[in-house]
Amino acid sequence: MPHTLLVTTHPRPDSLTAQTSAHLHARIKDGGGTVDVLDLYAEEFDPRLTPVDEPDWADREKRYSPEVRAHMERIEAADDIIVVFPVWWFGPPAVLKGWIERVWNYGFAYGRSRPRLAGKRMRWLGLAGGSSADYHEAGLDTAIDTQLRVGISEFCGITDAEVHLVHDTELSGIPEASRPDRVRKILSAAQAVLDVRD
Amino acid sequence: MPHTLLVTTHPRPDSLTAQTSAHLHARIKDGGGTVDVLDLYAEEFDPRLTPVDEPDWADREKRYSPEVRAHMERIEAADDIIVVFPVWWFGPPAVLKGWIERVWNYGFAYGRSRPRLAGKRMRWLGLAGGSSADYHEAGLDTAIDTQLRVGISEFCGITDAEVHLVHDTELSGIPEASRPDRVRKILSAAQAVLDVRD
Repeated sequence: MPHTLLVTTHPRPDSLTAQTSAHLHARIKDGGGTVDVLDLYAEEFDPRLTPVDEPDWADREKRYSPEVRAHMERIEAADDIIVVFPVWWFGPPAVLKGWIERVWNYGFAYGRSRPRLAGKRMRWLGLAGGSSADYHEAGLDTAIDTQLRVGISEFCGITDAEVHLVHDTELSGIPEASRPDRVRKILSAAQAVLDVRD
Repeated sequence: MPHTLLVTTHPRPDSLTAQTSAHLHARIKDGGGTVDVLDLYAEEFDPRLTPVDEPDWADREKRYSPEVRAHMERIEAADDIIVVFPVWWFGPPAVLKGWIERVWNYGFAYGRSRPRLAGKRMRWLGLAGGSSADYHEAGLDTAIDTQLRVGISEFCGITDAEVHLVHDTELSGIPEASRPDRVRKILSAAQAVLDVRD
């Protein structure tokens, strides 16, 4: 059975992002898979890249900080990488962006003739407050897909990569009584990232 | 004369980003303008949004943290906002993204029928290691422009907004003797963000 690294990013443990991650976690375990949950806020990950973790273009064997190396090991151990996040300003939250900047580093994630992460499967799941129509009209769906799938996953040689957006996830404008049903629909839509492996 | 908020983002004070910001700073002062330099790393800005600064969709008058309110005042005081950053993973660094997430908040930067920041001029200046051709082929130039100009500036009602990318800024592959000339060209290209006001 595949081993999944489930990355989740939200400051509140009662957030819709947290609920979605918990739901996916349970479903993967139901299917017999193992899961390593990486909750970037709960683990107090610092997204600020500093010189110790800055890529050295002259040395792809650079030894990064112990914290970063521990994160690299968790990525290497995974067959599937699923990243759940709220879409903030039409992109990943700073904490998640900084995880990529510090951990998906030169020599590890890219910069080798045989990419080390190439065989993995990657799914990005963004919970977007806005509607699909609004995103599409402004070209923001394409921008997000390009940044994450092309700019990160494929850049690192991961060709089995998809970006899924679940829209209309801002619940504050919905009557209280309608919310449980809406949450169920969101969780159901989120399962699209768990499609069966070939 | 206009007052400029010059935002700069790089962990090393000797970086090309820092040199570019210093160059723009000097040019603006030469022209008689005043400048507030916001160096996000030097000021140890924490890009992690926490509940105290999370937008409350039911209260656009929410009182954010003192740190965030101080940043809002610096934005309000500016006629021009210039943001200089290295392009990391085809987007702004986490520290800069988190500054937007925490400070460009609901009720301040967006969410009002008369946007408070609408009259300002905004320029994004990204220093990109890759070539213009590579960015264009993968659609990454459009993705960056959409995310920053449409998704942030215009979303906040700032219609006088432009994204400029200066390419081929990775100098490690260039012979030492050629670098000063290359840096001069980069600084010269960066001045495109300082075009004369109407």
